Amino acid sequence: MDKESIALWFQNLQDTICEQLTQADGGEARFQEDKWEREDGGGGRSRIIQAGNVLEKGGVNFSAVFGEATDKMLSMLKIDTTNEPLSFFASGVSIVMHPVSPLMPIIHLNVRYFEMTNGLWWFGGGIDLTPHYIDREDARWFHQQLKAVCDKHHARFYEDYKKWADDYFFIKHRRETRGVGGIFFDYLNEKSGFSKTQIFDFVKDVGLAFAPIYTHFMHKNKDLPYGEQERNWQGVRRGRYVEFNLVWDRGTKFGLETDGRTESILMSLPPQANWRYNDVPQQGSKEEETQNALRKGIDWLSLD
Amino acid sequence: MDKESIALWFQNLQDTICEQLTQADGGEARFQEDKWEREDGGGGRSRIIQAGNVLEKGGVNFSAVFGEATDKMLSMLKIDTTNEPLSFFASGVSIVMHPVSPLMPIIHLNVRYFEMTNGLWWFGGGIDLTPHYIDREDARWFHQQLKAVCDKHHARFYEDYKKWADDYFFIKHRRETRGVGGIFFDYLNEKSGFSKTQIFDFVKDVGLAFAPIYTHFMHKNKDLPYGEQERNWQGVRRGRYVEFNLVWDRGTKFGLETDGRTESILMSLPPQANWRYNDVPQQGSKEEETQNALRKGIDWLSLD
Repeated sequence: MDKESIALWFQNLQDTICEQLTQADGGEARFQEDKWEREDGGGGRSRIIQAGNVLEKGGVNFSAVFGEATDKMLSMLKIDTTNEPLSFFASGVSIVMHPVSPLMPIIHLNVRYFEMTNGLWWFGGGIDLTPHYIDREDARWFHQQLKAVCDKHHARFYEDYKKWADDYFFIKHRRETRGVGGIFFDYLNEKSGFSKTQIFDFVKDVGLAFAPIYTHFMHKNKDLPYGEQERNWQGVRRGRYVEFNLVWDRGTKFGLETDGRTESILMSLPPQANWRYNDVPQQGSKEEETQNALRKGIDWLSLD
Repeated sequence: MDKESIALWFQNLQDTICEQLTQADGGEARFQEDKWEREDGGGGRSRIIQAGNVLEKGGVNFSAVFGEATDKMLSMLKIDTTNEPLSFFASGVSIVMHPVSPLMPIIHLNVRYFEMTNGLWWFGGGIDLTPHYIDREDARWFHQQLKAVCDKHHARFYEDYKKWADDYFFIKHRRETRGVGGIFFDYLNEKSGFSKTQIFDFVKDVGLAFAPIYTHFMHKNKDLPYGEQERNWQGVRRGRYVEFNLVWDRGTKFGLETDGRTESILMSLPPQANWRYNDVPQQGSKEEETQNALRKGIDWLSLD
């Protein structure tokens, strides 16, 4: 399992997902591709869709970068610096989709691989869903899909990585989760008791699960009616998405602080976000119902 | 010069500034006040204005908090932790104003005082201006006012603190300044060669300069005509303001990570912000002219 074939698989995943999203969006809006090169080694293909029928703004980004591991990078990855210079290789696919409709959820996927010349390697990734309005049936269905992917590989994966997502996608300063969570995992290597091939097979299945899951919501929810109230709340929820990504998301911080490609990193930001001071949802409103469900530890599978 | 009288002066500054801004806004929009208490000691008065004639969203916040200095706090302030527990006291006024009109600048002020039971103390603060469209005459006038304040106290203050503002209000991942800068200073204590009284006198003059400067722009620019294009660009510039505050601003990071009052800290965020992928201003446009002037080291005073 060499790094080149892992990167190639990720690149093909980008193609597949872009095709399926384009089709589900109606076929008129196209992904705009920007190929970029990194000065110190490698590069990527950013693919952005804007002003689609269903997708207002989103990105499906692939990158494969390499070079000398800087001290900043090593310290952010919590790897002890050594005297000998180390080279790194990192490749992955990152997706964020902001739909037009406040009744469609925002979604995020990441799958990634990292290795260094000292022999260290790992996979990471996950999928999480951020509905502007939480629909318990949708959330249950979403978690069922993820559990099915996980269960193919190990009986404990879903439970462990669902908890990890709850902890990771948490807006600490708001004391609320970003959405209904999903799965998240990182630093998966041979110490997990699985072989590199086994882990990569799991990561592949996570990547392949994305398009069927999100296009399901695109078909199902895109025509639900909504009005001004729902658009306003979408602006607030998008504001929280911005707060999470810029304040807490490790990937974003890592990218911005190690001089990554800003426009590719910040494709995750919504087309528009709003902030009002101390904007608490009305008692008994559906906005309040969503707000109250932005908590860790909810077992979405068993809710009735 | 005890900490209580410093805090009291800051509190009075808040009153004065709120009165002057309310009046310049037309008198109909009022600051909404929230008094809050901090569990571990102290509290504050947040004053927020929304949907004014000139001011779309802004805050004039006062706080005076104290308690045991946590390890997190000490490490963020780069103070060596000791074995003996330390208590801290911090007080200040923070202001951010987001005007309705894209032809009015965003403004920010901060004045603050910090002390610890080990005898350490300092003042910090500054004012900086973020025009959506840079008007060189306005920028020059703004810097002239700051220079006049600085020159009353020391011939080197303006040059030093203007440079500090250029370096501080810099959006590293965009390689652009937040606006036309202003003055910024921090950790001013007896080691600066000035007495506590002298430093506080300077800080007072910075605080008192705020209302005359901003109400000048309110009267002068509020009725200038603009359209869709200017509103769109305002959304982009507000997005950059969000990026700076959430990614780079030390005060915001410190507040969010040490469990400060989130709604008071994030009053700095605009009512609305927009992001488009790779949104480069058209060649020869006034937006491009502003973009090109978002650089460190511009001597706004001597431009003609």
